Amino acid sequence: MKFVTFYYADSIASGIIDGDDIIVCSQGDDARTAVLKLCGQDQVVIDRWVANGTNRIALAGVELLSPIPEPQRDILCVGKNYYAHAAEFHSSGFDSTSKESVPKVPVIFTKAPTSVIGPGAPVNGSLDPTQSVDYEIELGIVIGKKAFQVSKANAYDHVFGYLIINDVTSRELQQRHGQWTIGKSLDTFCPMGPWLVTSDEIADVNAMKLVTKVNGEVRQQAVVSDLIFDIPTLIETMSSTMTLMPGDIIATGTPAGVGIGYTPPKYLSKGDHMSLEISGLGRLENTIE
Amino acid sequence: MKFVTFYYADSIASGIIDGDDIIVCSQGDDARTAVLKLCGQDQVVIDRWVANGTNRIALAGVELLSPIPEPQRDILCVGKNYYAHAAEFHSSGFDSTSKESVPKVPVIFTKAPTSVIGPGAPVNGSLDPTQSVDYEIELGIVIGKKAFQVSKANAYDHVFGYLIINDVTSRELQQRHGQWTIGKSLDTFCPMGPWLVTSDEIADVNAMKLVTKVNGEVRQQAVVSDLIFDIPTLIETMSSTMTLMPGDIIATGTPAGVGIGYTPPKYLSKGDHMSLEISGLGRLENTIE
Repeated sequence: MKFVTFYYADSIASGIIDGDDIIVCSQGDDARTAVLKLCGQDQVVIDRWVANGTNRIALAGVELLSPIPEPQRDILCVGKNYYAHAAEFHSSGFDSTSKESVPKVPVIFTKAPTSVIGPGAPVNGSLDPTQSVDYEIELGIVIGKKAFQVSKANAYDHVFGYLIINDVTSRELQQRHGQWTIGKSLDTFCPMGPWLVTSDEIADVNAMKLVTKVNGEVRQQAVVSDLIFDIPTLIETMSSTMTLMPGDIIATGTPAGVGIGYTPPKYLSKGDHMSLEISGLGRLENTIE
Repeated sequence: MKFVTFYYADSIASGIIDGDDIIVCSQGDDARTAVLKLCGQDQVVIDRWVANGTNRIALAGVELLSPIPEPQRDILCVGKNYYAHAAEFHSSGFDSTSKESVPKVPVIFTKAPTSVIGPGAPVNGSLDPTQSVDYEIELGIVIGKKAFQVSKANAYDHVFGYLIINDVTSRELQQRHGQWTIGKSLDTFCPMGPWLVTSDEIADVNAMKLVTKVNGEVRQQAVVSDLIFDIPTLIETMSSTMTLMPGDIIATGTPAGVGIGYTPPKYLSKGDHMSLEISGLGRLENTIE
């Protein structure tokens, strides 16, 4: 299933994609949290929600929000989780984390829920006073079952689905503040979507391809199997001391090719268009405003 | 006003303290988020909530939870925000943040909402595989009005109230993971309370005294005016790029005297009792389990 949340009749609605259509299942204020609340529900509950869908509209022309427009907590993010990116970030001089290029254990930080926007919504680049805005394509995982001390072997049982996350970053703020919350949490700096795809639709997570284009130019290209710490390792590590809840979102890290990987850095500026694709998850497009 | 949330008749309730009593204002599932939802409401709404209080019970003997047991997002925390603590942390060798002792700008990280517990609840020290559990008394601010690009001069208009936070930390995990989310977010590692005191009850925030005792021994002692970045600066800095929402919680940093400030470090172990007091906010006591 592919869950969507979208503007609808002067309000908000959520539903699922069916072919070229959306089946409208929740409307109004409830729709803001409808998809979030379905994460981890029994299939029978989800099926009932869909069966109660009141209307069918064409997907084309609908203005989508993030499928989860108001996350229940900060987005959990993984830093330096692809080898080539770990090297480019380390040698960029912007790494306030550590002396080593490849981390021995996952580097985990967070992104404010208030930074989340949907596909097509403008990223407010002018909010960054240092004009060092950068893109980061990431495979996002949505937790579907409470996870505490979950082993790698059982990790995928706790995944509800996947979506694309653009971990937009102010590089100067990221470095300046030592810890990364400020540089990662600017309003509008977390485009997410276009839809939440349930895990049963993904045959092989490790085979998924990630591609970022900026103004049509390919910048990032990788396969999920290139991750330093794979999804089971991330879930095992985080859940070993911290309970993950249904609806929690994990951004698994970005591959090489971000703006600071270039000399001189290719920062984003007004009018730049980002197109992020992950196989099976669609395309997430946003423009810098 | 002093808001409390507590166990009540096999369920949960919330209310306000009136002398030696609690006026019970919300019960059952609503009580989990009642205090959170009141943050930033008009006084008339709060007064109506209190006027509808159904019952009056003695505060003594009630088992309190955190006044906000389920925060809407991660707790925003400030690192190295008292001079003497910045120095002790820097020289401890556990600082993965930067090369400088005193930061030039606030160091902001977060703590998982799932780590929050109430006064008296046990801190599960055994969750830390590295046995490097440390205490950190902090003045917590609760935001009362949406804050975006708020100047220092107007910052206090956005504060709803205050509470005590114990930013319990695994020092080894904090260092090992580079970014601090993992080392700060272990389940039960964020005792908070005992109540949320509205800002009108605090005559002079800067004069508030913080005292931590471990097993009766004074370990931390400071005045809020010792902060490197004061409350208006923190709100101005964070809100300059990130919208703060009513109910968001900021832990403003800890003074000198934490366990790693000693040689050898005085880590917490099973049975250790922490007593944290801030003038006007009561006392927050928790024991390591």
